[in-house]
Amino acid sequence: MSALVGGVEAGGTKFVCALGRDGEIVAETRIATTSPAETLAAALAFFKHQGSPAALGVASFGPIDLDERSPTHGFITTTPKPGWAHTDVAGPLRRALGVPVAFDTDVNAAALAEQRWGAARDAGSVVYVTVGTGIGGGAVVNGRPVHGLAHPEMGHARIPHDRAADPFAGACPHHGDCWEGLAAAPALAARWGVSPQSLPDDHPAWALEAHYLALGLANIILTLSPERLVLGGGVLARSGLLERVRIDVRGLIGDYVRSADIVPPALGNRSGVLGALALAADLAG
Amino acid sequence: MSALVGGVEAGGTKFVCALGRDGEIVAETRIATTSPAETLAAALAFFKHQGSPAALGVASFGPIDLDERSPTHGFITTTPKPGWAHTDVAGPLRRALGVPVAFDTDVNAAALAEQRWGAARDAGSVVYVTVGTGIGGGAVVNGRPVHGLAHPEMGHARIPHDRAADPFAGACPHHGDCWEGLAAAPALAARWGVSPQSLPDDHPAWALEAHYLALGLANIILTLSPERLVLGGGVLARSGLLERVRIDVRGLIGDYVRSADIVPPALGNRSGVLGALALAADLAG
Repeated sequence: MSALVGGVEAGGTKFVCALGRDGEIVAETRIATTSPAETLAAALAFFKHQGSPAALGVASFGPIDLDERSPTHGFITTTPKPGWAHTDVAGPLRRALGVPVAFDTDVNAAALAEQRWGAARDAGSVVYVTVGTGIGGGAVVNGRPVHGLAHPEMGHARIPHDRAADPFAGACPHHGDCWEGLAAAPALAARWGVSPQSLPDDHPAWALEAHYLALGLANIILTLSPERLVLGGGVLARSGLLERVRIDVRGLIGDYVRSADIVPPALGNRSGVLGALALAADLAG
Repeated sequence: MSALVGGVEAGGTKFVCALGRDGEIVAETRIATTSPAETLAAALAFFKHQGSPAALGVASFGPIDLDERSPTHGFITTTPKPGWAHTDVAGPLRRALGVPVAFDTDVNAAALAEQRWGAARDAGSVVYVTVGTGIGGGAVVNGRPVHGLAHPEMGHARIPHDRAADPFAGACPHHGDCWEGLAAAPALAARWGVSPQSLPDDHPAWALEAHYLALGLANIILTLSPERLVLGGGVLARSGLLERVRIDVRGLIGDYVRSADIVPPALGNRSGVLGALALAADLAG
C-alpha cells in the first residue's frame, strides 16, 4: 500500500485539506480562506492532528511562482485577492511539517487527477478547462503538469470577437475581450443583464457561449493536441452546452487534424484536492 | 564519444540526410523530393554507403501519425502533396537499415535542436514557430516533444481579425482566416498584391503582420508558458519585424504573466536536420 500523503486545495474562498492515498481520501477538512496566517495555521493544525503525511501537495489559485530556481518559488504572486499577493504558501507548510511539498496550479492538479483517477484515465496527454467565475486551464504533457516560465493562463488568450454580432466589450479587467472576458460567467451576466442561471436553454446566449468556448478550445487543441480534453465548471452545468461546444469545435477544426474527445470531469469538485494528493504521491515516490 | 546517428529532414521540396553526433554533422546529402519510393531509396543509399547509424531520426513535414499504437504510425497522413498522402516513411527506413527510427514533425525536431544546441540552450520548455509559406509550431515540454492525439498544428489556430481594418478573407484553404491564413507569406502576397519581399520596411503591411504574429504567439505563450520562444522562417528575415512582434506581445499579455523571451533561431536552416539527429540520439541512449 502506498504511503499516506496530504493534499491542500488552496482556493480563494476555501482551503480543502485532505489525507489520503491512491485517490482515496481518509480524512478531510474545509477551512474558510481568511488571512494567509490564519488560513495556513488552520491547515497546519489539521495535518498535525492527523499525523504528518509522507509528502504534501498544494493545488493553488494563482498566479503562482513555480520556478524552482526562484526565491519566491511556492508563492502566490500577483493575485488581486486582498492580503494574498506575494504570499509564501508552500514554505510555511514545508517548514512546519518537515516534509517535501509539491506546488502547482489548481487546474494543473485537476488535469493530473482526472488523468489518474477520472475522465482521462487512458489518455497520455490531458487538458483540463474550467469555466465559472473565470476560465482556467491546466495540462499534463509527457507525464507531468505543464510548467515553463510560469504556468498556463489559457483564459486570457484572445479569440475572434465579432463586435457587430456581439457589441459587448468584454469583462476582463486586464484584457477586456479575452476568452475569459467574453465567456466566463461574469461576461454572461454583464452581456445579458441577468444571472446566467436565469437564461432559458433556448436563449441565444447559449449558442454564442458555445461558439466562444469552442474558439478557445479549438486553439488549445491545435496547440497541444491533447488526447482528452476535460471541460468543467459551473457554466457547463447548462444542459446541452457541452454537446454544442463539441459540434462547434468539430466545425472549427474540420478534417484537418483529429480533435480530442471533449468530456465532462469525472471527479467533479474533488479534482483539485485529489490533484493535490496526486502531486504529493509523485513526490513521495 | 556518443554513437554516430542518422537524421532525415523530410521536407516537401528536399530531404536532407545526415550522419553525426552531439550536434556535429560528419556527412550530409540533399535529395530532391520526388516520389516516395524514389526519395526514400536515395535516402537509404546514403545511409548504406556511410555505414549504418546506431539509430535514425526523421523530422517530417505533416500532418503525420505519431501514435505508437496506430497501424499507420510513422506515416505522412493527409498531406495535399501529390503522391505523399498516407505514405509510410519510417517503416521502409527501419526495415532496410535494421535500426530503431524516431519519427516527429519538422517543427518539434527544430524545437528540440534549438533547445539542445541553439537559441534555447538554457530553457526547460521551448516553443519553435516558423513563418514562411505556412506557419508551423513545435514544442518541447517536460524534456520531450509535445505529442498527443496527433501533434501541434499551431498555424491553424484562430486569432481576432478586424475585417473593417483588414478585409482580406484569409488564404488558408481549410480555415480561411486562421493564423496561417492571415499571416503566412501567401497571405501577405494575396493581401497586398505583390511579393512580400518587395514591400518596403515602412509599408503598413509590416505593422499588421507584427500584430497578427503577436496575437498568435501571445495565445501560445498563455497556453504553454514556454521559457523561450524561438521565432524563425523566411517572413522573419524582414528587418525590424521581430522587435515589433516582441513589443506587440508585451502589449497583449500586459503585466498579468511573465512572457517568454522571443528570440531568432541560432541554427538557421540546420534546425530540422539537427533535430532529426537529436531524436536519433535520444533513441540510441
